[in-house]
Amino acid sequence: MADAPTADAVPVRRSRDVPLLVERARAGDPRAVARLITLVENGDEVLRDIAAALAPYAGQAQVVGLTGSPGVGKSTTTNELVRALRARGHRVGVLAVDPSSPFTGGAILGDRVRMQDHATDPGVYIRSMSSRGHLGGLAAATPQAVRVLEGAGCDVVLVETVGVGQAEVEVASLADTTLVLLAPGMGDAIQAVKAGILEIADVFVVNKADRDGADATYRDIQGMIALGERGPGDWRPQVVRSVAARGEGIDDIAAAIDKHRGWLVEHGELRRRQEARAAAEIEAIALGVLRDRMGSLRDGTELPSLAAKVAEGAIDPYAAADQLLEQLGS
Amino acid sequence: MADAPTADAVPVRRSRDVPLLVERARAGDPRAVARLITLVENGDEVLRDIAAALAPYAGQAQVVGLTGSPGVGKSTTTNELVRALRARGHRVGVLAVDPSSPFTGGAILGDRVRMQDHATDPGVYIRSMSSRGHLGGLAAATPQAVRVLEGAGCDVVLVETVGVGQAEVEVASLADTTLVLLAPGMGDAIQAVKAGILEIADVFVVNKADRDGADATYRDIQGMIALGERGPGDWRPQVVRSVAARGEGIDDIAAAIDKHRGWLVEHGELRRRQEARAAAEIEAIALGVLRDRMGSLRDGTELPSLAAKVAEGAIDPYAAADQLLEQLGS
Repeated sequence: MADAPTADAVPVRRSRDVPLLVERARAGDPRAVARLITLVENGDEVLRDIAAALAPYAGQAQVVGLTGSPGVGKSTTTNELVRALRARGHRVGVLAVDPSSPFTGGAILGDRVRMQDHATDPGVYIRSMSSRGHLGGLAAATPQAVRVLEGAGCDVVLVETVGVGQAEVEVASLADTTLVLLAPGMGDAIQAVKAGILEIADVFVVNKADRDGADATYRDIQGMIALGERGPGDWRPQVVRSVAARGEGIDDIAAAIDKHRGWLVEHGELRRRQEARAAAEIEAIALGVLRDRMGSLRDGTELPSLAAKVAEGAIDPYAAADQLLEQLGS
Repeated sequence: MADAPTADAVPVRRSRDVPLLVERARAGDPRAVARLITLVENGDEVLRDIAAALAPYAGQAQVVGLTGSPGVGKSTTTNELVRALRARGHRVGVLAVDPSSPFTGGAILGDRVRMQDHATDPGVYIRSMSSRGHLGGLAAATPQAVRVLEGAGCDVVLVETVGVGQAEVEVASLADTTLVLLAPGMGDAIQAVKAGILEIADVFVVNKADRDGADATYRDIQGMIALGERGPGDWRPQVVRSVAARGEGIDDIAAAIDKHRGWLVEHGELRRRQEARAAAEIEAIALGVLRDRMGSLRDGTELPSLAAKVAEGAIDPYAAADQLLEQLGS
C-alpha cells in the first residue's frame, strides 16, 4: 500500500466527494490515502471537509517523531524501524516531512528512494510531504496527514523531520514519543544544549555507534540527562546506540518506544499530549488564517508602503504594525 | 565596549527614561547599549518607545548573517571575522542569537567565553541574545537589537545563528549579506538542498578546510551553484575555504562580504533588502500582537476546552480554529 504514483488521478472537486474518499481510505485503498494526504498538504479547498470527516479517528495511532541534524542517518533508521515494527505486527505509516525548505517545496526524491524496501509491503504507507500552500504550515498540515493515516488503520505513525531547531519543537508538540538522533562528531554536548534538544527528546539514539567518538557522545548525553531536573515518576530519557546501516540496535529503539508508550499511558500523559497537540494545531490554523488575511494586505500596497517608511527611518516598525492591524480590522 | 555585566543596573522604568538612554548609547556608552538590547529582547513595556527613538538610524550598518549547523565553527569564525573587520577600521557589533532553544532561553555562556578575545576592544560590542518574551519572537527582536547597534555607531553587525532550517530563512530576511558555514562530513549535497540553504546563501564558507572531505564539499557546493538559475547581473554565491581555528581564509571571507556589499549597492538591491526586512519585521510584530491576544485565550478556558474536544474526536481542528477566532473578534 505504498504511496501510489497515480493517486492524483482520483478526482476530488467538491466537498461531496470527500466522504467516499475517506471511506475508501478506511477500507485500505492506498490511492485514496495518498490522495487525501495530497489534498491536505496542498491546502485544498476541501481541507475542512476532510478534517471534519477524519475527526473521529483522532488519537488512534502512536505518533513517533524522529528528528536530528542532516547526516545523522534519519532515513536509514526510519527504514529499519519500519521493518522492526512490521515484524511486531504493526501497520505503519511514515511521513517524511521537510520543514526546512520553504523554497524547494520540501519533498525530494531521496527519502522515497531509500524507502524502496517497503514499497511492496501492504502494511506500510510511506509519504514525503511538504507544507506548501497549507494554511497553518507544517504545524497544521502534519497532524492532518497523521489523521489520514490513523483513519487508514495505522497503529504507528513515524514522522521524520530534518533539521535542528524549530522543527524539533514542532515535532515534539506533534508526537507522543520523540526520538532525537545523534551521530558522533556532529557537535559536542554544548551544541545539543544550545539546540534545546535535551528538553524535547524522550529517546536519544546515538546512531553510527561504530564510529570514533560514539562513546564520548553517549557519555555526554547520559551526563546531560543526569543533570536534568525531574521529579519521581517523570520520564527519564533513554539513550540507545545503533548502527542503522547494518540494522544493529533497531530492536532496542523499538523497545524504548514501547517503554515510553507504557509510561505515557500509565501516567495519563498520553491524553495530555494529545490535547496539547490539538491546542497547538488549532492555534496554528488560526494564525494561518490571520497570516492569510495579512498576506492579502502584503499583495496590496499597504505593507510595502509601510516597509518603505520604516526602511527610510520615517516610522518605527511597531507603529507600522499597529497601522497594519488596523487595516486588518483587528 | 563589550557587553558590561552591570548593564542591568541602569534603571529604565518609564518611557521618559528612554531618550536619555538612547542618547548615551549614541555617545558610545556600552552599558547603555547593553541595557537597550536587554530591554528589547525582554519585550519590555518601553519597547515601543525605544523603537521610536531608534527609527532614524535604520540601515546605517551592513548586516551580515552567519549561520550553519551546530559544530561547523560559527563562533570561531565570527571571532576571527571580528578581528579582520577591526583591522579594516570598522566598528563591529555581534549578536549571537539562539533561536533553536525556546526552553533554555537561548543565551548560554559558550559564545561569550569564546569571544573573550575582544572583551577589552572599545570598537566591538558582543551580545548573546534570546527572543524570550518578545512580541514578534526572534524575527522582531533581532532587527531591533541591530538598530540599537546601528544607533551606537557600528559599521558592521554580525548576526550569528545556530541551526539549519527556519533560522536561516529568518537570518536571510534580516541580513544584507548571508554567510552559510559548512564543514566537511556534515552531510552531503542533497542534505544542503533539502535544508534550502542554497537559495539563501550569498557566501558559502567551507570551514575546517584542512579536514578530509573538504575538497568534496567545496566541489559539491560549486556544482550546486552552477546548476542554479540566475540571470545576467544576478549575484553568484561565492565559495570560500577557511580554517577559522588557525585564522586561515578569514580575509577571503571579509573580501567576499565586501564584494557582495558592492553588488548590493550597484544593483539597488540594498534598499530592496532593507524594505523586505522591514516588511517581515512589521508582519512579525503584527502576528506577535495577534498571538499574544490568542495567548490570553490559551490561559483562559476556551482553547483548552476546544483542544479537549478535538482530542476526543468531537470536532475537527478547523472548526475549533474558527471558534477561537470568533472569540478573538477576528
